[in-house]
Amino acid sequence: MSNPIAVLVDGKALAPDDARDWPLDRGLQYGDGLFETMMVRGGHIRFADLHRQRLAKGCERLRLRLAQAPLWEQAASLAGIHGDAVLKLLVTRGPAAQRGYGTSGQEIVRTVLYAFAPSNPADIPADVHVVTLKARLGENPALAGLKHCNRLEQVLARMELQPTGAFEGLMGTGSGRLISGTMSNVFLDTDDGLVTPALDQCGVDGVMRAVALRAAEAMGLPVRIAAVPWSALRTCRGLFLTNVRLGVLPVGQLDGRVLQVGEAMRALARTVAAS
Amino acid sequence: MSNPIAVLVDGKALAPDDARDWPLDRGLQYGDGLFETMMVRGGHIRFADLHRQRLAKGCERLRLRLAQAPLWEQAASLAGIHGDAVLKLLVTRGPAAQRGYGTSGQEIVRTVLYAFAPSNPADIPADVHVVTLKARLGENPALAGLKHCNRLEQVLARMELQPTGAFEGLMGTGSGRLISGTMSNVFLDTDDGLVTPALDQCGVDGVMRAVALRAAEAMGLPVRIAAVPWSALRTCRGLFLTNVRLGVLPVGQLDGRVLQVGEAMRALARTVAAS
Repeated sequence: MSNPIAVLVDGKALAPDDARDWPLDRGLQYGDGLFETMMVRGGHIRFADLHRQRLAKGCERLRLRLAQAPLWEQAASLAGIHGDAVLKLLVTRGPAAQRGYGTSGQEIVRTVLYAFAPSNPADIPADVHVVTLKARLGENPALAGLKHCNRLEQVLARMELQPTGAFEGLMGTGSGRLISGTMSNVFLDTDDGLVTPALDQCGVDGVMRAVALRAAEAMGLPVRIAAVPWSALRTCRGLFLTNVRLGVLPVGQLDGRVLQVGEAMRALARTVAAS
Repeated sequence: MSNPIAVLVDGKALAPDDARDWPLDRGLQYGDGLFETMMVRGGHIRFADLHRQRLAKGCERLRLRLAQAPLWEQAASLAGIHGDAVLKLLVTRGPAAQRGYGTSGQEIVRTVLYAFAPSNPADIPADVHVVTLKARLGENPALAGLKHCNRLEQVLARMELQPTGAFEGLMGTGSGRLISGTMSNVFLDTDDGLVTPALDQCGVDGVMRAVALRAAEAMGLPVRIAAVPWSALRTCRGLFLTNVRLGVLPVGQLDGRVLQVGEAMRALARTVAAS
């Protein structure tokens, strides 16, 4: 029971040969893949090394046999062509060699590179409002940290966020931990100093989170990585979001409560923007 | 920032227009979709009503705007052509209208129907061996029960299962609950009678599970639906698996321990096979 004997897409039999293996892609069927979203400035991928390392680690954990070098050459070349852009890189386990969840180990990984027009800075409000969401993140150490393609939790979270009009929504676990935003990592300014949630149970190990941690260390600003209870959101003085598109983004309001944007947070944002 | 300005697939620019929107499919990017796997016998889809109901409920929960009627006409037609087959139906949110997890609500859902050659009965061993797996299921009520396309947990579980040589592997949660097999639901024969795990936190609400529950009720065989602790696997007398391909499948050994296959279990398997 390997290849299907018939495939209908939107009711029509699949004809063109080169479209034939898309419906069989394990990315499509199971979200069996990884991705990276990268900023291109002046023809170069920002933080390319960190993206490469994360992708390599993810491929190892999901046992995706990807030839990294040619892919990154293609990405660099596309970055050079487009100058300023958002580059998305998708790696899937490719067309299924058999029906079902099991892998044969012989799958030919598929890679897709997308260049998008650069973000419009006007899309980021000067006063960033954030809300807490009911949408949860399931806990599974085997997937924690990975930027994998199982993103229904984020899709549902964005549906909950949209009608609020807020810029970002924060998500926690059923066990009562704060983890991240729908598309960003989060750092809290608390009585015990700066803290960012540990990502041992779920969440994405964000490249900008790593950049911010590195910058904070260089500035002598201690940041703890720890389990953060959801309740910490009620008492924190301030918070900021990180993602590669946003950099370090201080938050003005959380669920309507005005937050402090301290000088240390501003300095970190400036340092990261200039790096 | 909507459509990409360039797309490379495996290093080549996408040329044919009709393949162009596959890489943008939200199924591929986020596993943003649902599926059904159905058995076709004598040109008819078995338990078609239950599959329809589950898909409709799933579409509602994920807000997928699917015209059900034409899809099920296509499925019935394909079933009629192939007589005996495994039919897979995939519904995704279709090509992304924008970058990112957020939905516009205007996405055009994509449907794919696959006909596979029927299962070989010889693939199912006479003495079914099952093992417990370390691979976990994350708990998230918003996704629990759905046959959605976020299946990396099952992919990893099958990787763990494969070298054991066992037919199926059982999965639990970080909170210590037994949920299901990698591709099946599970029923335990305990001192308190038959029980199958509640699916309020995770797991797939299997069609054959519903068929078995209905058949058990008709036979006057009580089955509890409840939270089942992982430790119940150490003490249960017997267990059986359900899925539409396997029917009700009694298990001979669990982690090497020989299980009892009681008369009630056999009767249930016969009843379901004949239904």
